[in-house]
Amino acid sequence: MLSKIREKEERIIIGINTGTSADGIDTALVRIKNCGLEAEIEVIGYETFPYSPTLRQRLLNDMGQASAGAAELCIISSYLAEIFAYSAKALCKKLSFPFEEVDAIGMHGQTIYHHPEPLSFPGYKITGTMQIGNPALLAERTGKIVVSDFRSRDMAAQGQGAPLTSYLDYILFNHRARGRVLLNIGGVANVTGIPADSPPERVIAFDTGPGNAMIDSAMLYFTKGEKGYDENGNFAKQGKVNDQLLLKLLSHNYFKKAPPKSLDKETFGKNFCLKLIKENPQISSNDFVATVTQFTINTICGGIKEFILSKDSSYEELVVFGGGHKNGFVMKGIKENFPKLSINSEEDYPILGRGKEAVLYAFLANETLMNRCGNLPSATGASKPVILGSLTPGNEGL
Amino acid sequence: MLSKIREKEERIIIGINTGTSADGIDTALVRIKNCGLEAEIEVIGYETFPYSPTLRQRLLNDMGQASAGAAELCIISSYLAEIFAYSAKALCKKLSFPFEEVDAIGMHGQTIYHHPEPLSFPGYKITGTMQIGNPALLAERTGKIVVSDFRSRDMAAQGQGAPLTSYLDYILFNHRARGRVLLNIGGVANVTGIPADSPPERVIAFDTGPGNAMIDSAMLYFTKGEKGYDENGNFAKQGKVNDQLLLKLLSHNYFKKAPPKSLDKETFGKNFCLKLIKENPQISSNDFVATVTQFTINTICGGIKEFILSKDSSYEELVVFGGGHKNGFVMKGIKENFPKLSINSEEDYPILGRGKEAVLYAFLANETLMNRCGNLPSATGASKPVILGSLTPGNEGL
Repeated sequence: MLSKIREKEERIIIGINTGTSADGIDTALVRIKNCGLEAEIEVIGYETFPYSPTLRQRLLNDMGQASAGAAELCIISSYLAEIFAYSAKALCKKLSFPFEEVDAIGMHGQTIYHHPEPLSFPGYKITGTMQIGNPALLAERTGKIVVSDFRSRDMAAQGQGAPLTSYLDYILFNHRARGRVLLNIGGVANVTGIPADSPPERVIAFDTGPGNAMIDSAMLYFTKGEKGYDENGNFAKQGKVNDQLLLKLLSHNYFKKAPPKSLDKETFGKNFCLKLIKENPQISSNDFVATVTQFTINTICGGIKEFILSKDSSYEELVVFGGGHKNGFVMKGIKENFPKLSINSEEDYPILGRGKEAVLYAFLANETLMNRCGNLPSATGASKPVILGSLTPGNEGL
Repeated sequence: MLSKIREKEERIIIGINTGTSADGIDTALVRIKNCGLEAEIEVIGYETFPYSPTLRQRLLNDMGQASAGAAELCIISSYLAEIFAYSAKALCKKLSFPFEEVDAIGMHGQTIYHHPEPLSFPGYKITGTMQIGNPALLAERTGKIVVSDFRSRDMAAQGQGAPLTSYLDYILFNHRARGRVLLNIGGVANVTGIPADSPPERVIAFDTGPGNAMIDSAMLYFTKGEKGYDENGNFAKQGKVNDQLLLKLLSHNYFKKAPPKSLDKETFGKNFCLKLIKENPQISSNDFVATVTQFTINTICGGIKEFILSKDSSYEELVVFGGGHKNGFVMKGIKENFPKLSINSEEDYPILGRGKEAVLYAFLANETLMNRCGNLPSATGASKPVILGSLTPGNEGL
């Protein structure tokens, strides 16, 4: 089965991503010829299936370090696999694409915990990452080979397990004459810098800091659960940045560290944000959201300037992906910071669009199926390239 | 890589098991020719690597439904993989077998949660099982293909995910003239009935009830952590069974259900036992241990009589495996119940010995590598045979 798939001229793969914001299931149906630097990727279509508000809230709670026990994680892992299977089939139906022709599914799963900083155990330094979404159940319901658990192997090789997007970014966006910075603003914000005319080893990638997570958490809190995000940044626009709080936030050690570096969801997540709100009762809701939005802008722009633009003069373009590119306050801040860069967003690359992260897991699944390494050590900090993920047999085996 | 392994005349596989009692890591080095009913299994050697008392206690705590959060499970999963890797290498070293010649590792992982009874979710009935032991880390440290997560696929096909041992039991113990009952007394006790001259579809297997889990928990409690088990049943022998408590325990609904059925570790686990001790302060420590030991005996023997011996007259032999066979109190009880059966123990089948469960995961890994189904639906209750587990590539890929 695996050898047959490898011999095919092109593979049809569904990528499934569920971001740290836990807003829904992003799916992409992708046709891939070849692999590695020769990969030719055609996105047949993509679709987002939002989580119900109840499930979203449950997942956000589960991500808290102390809150989710084994029973909850185990059962929700199976439940997610059921709705991933539903989503994969619904995607094909919507695109009128025969599901039988799909060769495999690349499933990232919902990240519940990510700890790339080593903890000391007798004789060992231990890191770990946990994504839920039961691959055996997804394979059984769809009959397809499932590739999953993409981050663990990179971490086993001393990497941060993130960002994984750099390799695909390189393949899609490397340009002979034009250096490009790719920014993805999800729950966390991450960037990839691809200097003009460079081999993949020169790609720089890291998490800059918070993306939408703090803004979303603050909005949920101030609107008593009514709004889960700040539409176009309108709520922040009515506020004034509190400089004292902003300076305190910017003094966090993470921003001083050079890449490779990555964040877990907790560091600038919901609990961090709620604690901050409680410690600063004097700051109005609009001012608070304006401040954390400005915090997001400053850490994104600071990271890009210090660790990417300063290293190479070929950068001409910045492309913004992810939910955050719809926040006018954020986009205005970014544009003001980079007057010399041409600023584009995912709408300018419609073939990827908001399906980019889902396309990534289809692409990485293809690499794994083809026995190729899928991490870029220059981005993740791993000691070497490794084959990412585990394969769960489809109905016809492997 | 996978095709090469499939074409080999025999495969060398290490099986790694960690039972629900969390006493240590059982490893077995196994040479397997062919697969399925034609499999020829040679156990080159086996070895147990006990957990440290600290780790054992930590794992037992983690198994509690409410106690282990995502952070703990994720980090311990990686730590276990490190010591599994160490154990696999140490096993080969001890047997003077070149580690380079090992083709794959079958890793069961430490069960943290197992819930085969369906829970209702909108539109779905959800079950789940969780074993920890990071397969990507084990693959990275050993360079070997790792087969893991053996139970999920059977449960995705409506099975109980247990017992998985029946298929191997059938291959090793089916006999033209002699029906055999195989009993394994681990934390939980499970039996497999193989009538004489029968196809695998006639195998009956299920968990009978508690194995050593309650006895061990009570011993730990009464000896203030000094003794983790009742050596040869000597502690129980000094007590007297409390009939009232025994009758109450035997009235549990589980014993009335017909197979297929399986137990999670919780139902007759540590917390259940400690609660019972607190509810019965009038019962002395020796009497309490005698009573839960008798409970173990009665449920094992009752299950065998009602659901195995009554269905077929060919049974002549009972073979007892697992830590419980060293408990003289338990063995005496079993012998008294079955005067007509020839009672043997794992010492009578030295090639398997206490490595049996570890051999099982080497055997099941071989089935998965060979694209074969590894569950017996008559034992697990699954709707069909399925390929078990996920494959994580070794250093040379899949």
